[in-house]
Amino acid sequence: MKTLPLSQVYQLLEPGPVVLLTTARNGRANVMTMSWHMMLEFEPPLIACVVSSANHSFAALRATGECVIAIPARKLASKVVKVGNTSGRNTDKFKSAGLTPAQAERVAPPLVVECFANLECKVTDARLVNKYNLFILEVLKAWKDPAQKNPKTIHHHGYGTFVVDGETIKLKSKMR
Amino acid sequence: MKTLPLSQVYQLLEPGPVVLLTTARNGRANVMTMSWHMMLEFEPPLIACVVSSANHSFAALRATGECVIAIPARKLASKVVKVGNTSGRNTDKFKSAGLTPAQAERVAPPLVVECFANLECKVTDARLVNKYNLFILEVLKAWKDPAQKNPKTIHHHGYGTFVVDGETIKLKSKMR
Repeated sequence: MKTLPLSQVYQLLEPGPVVLLTTARNGRANVMTMSWHMMLEFEPPLIACVVSSANHSFAALRATGECVIAIPARKLASKVVKVGNTSGRNTDKFKSAGLTPAQAERVAPPLVVECFANLECKVTDARLVNKYNLFILEVLKAWKDPAQKNPKTIHHHGYGTFVVDGETIKLKSKMR
Repeated sequence: MKTLPLSQVYQLLEPGPVVLLTTARNGRANVMTMSWHMMLEFEPPLIACVVSSANHSFAALRATGECVIAIPARKLASKVVKVGNTSGRNTDKFKSAGLTPAQAERVAPPLVVECFANLECKVTDARLVNKYNLFILEVLKAWKDPAQKNPKTIHHHGYGTFVVDGETIKLKSKMR
């Protein structure tokens, strides 16, 4: 995987893909699926996301203040759903879903090798965690897999219905 | 337009579409494009969104605490970009972009007739506005246009590149 400039991170998350979130605590890594996330700032990239207190990952994220957001392409859809359907409480979800963890550079939680992008994050603002399970993250380091060209992401519409990226259109926009 | 149950609102925003946001102040309506938004709660639906203080809509949203989030399908892409490329400071953007405002039921800002869904919202938490331009909204009333079947939404990848919804896949998911 190659380093991705932090200024380009928003281009990955702004479209709203389903992502994986990894945590690590007491030497044990875990991974969950997540769809409730958004960009908050371009650079340094800030991300807001909801990790439900019903998720096993919640306690690890709150206690350690670290996670990796990994972005899967369409070919990983069934693994993503497998991750979403099981709890890390009693299961090694990397193993059960067939995903490969790899050492990150700036944080303890692992990268996900099969994902086309990985974002190493630390929690920078936890003020809204108690009320909304809302974490604010700063991306410290970003990775992209150059072997995965034009990856198509998946978007969750509820109850296991996902829409895959289709046609790309370009319009003369002043929007960054 | 028909009423949409509030419990289904998350299915519209969780996939991360580009949306329009309308405001009204001193009898004047305005509309902007927005891509930085996420769900915070299923029901009543809570939404977090960033409206930059550089946008003309920011002051109206902060002062009135009301907005409408309208979701455009692919056929409106060029109008959406037109809205994103102009400021409401000196322009009636509904007129210049060729969009039709309509009276909402619970808030002063208008619905956008051409959009397939409209969400009437009030600001319920402004604690993070000063630091991140982050507003927390509650959806009071939701509308869907039954004439627009299976609308394809657009997703912004930066600098006027948009990806349109493609194939739909269904997987056995426990995720709501």
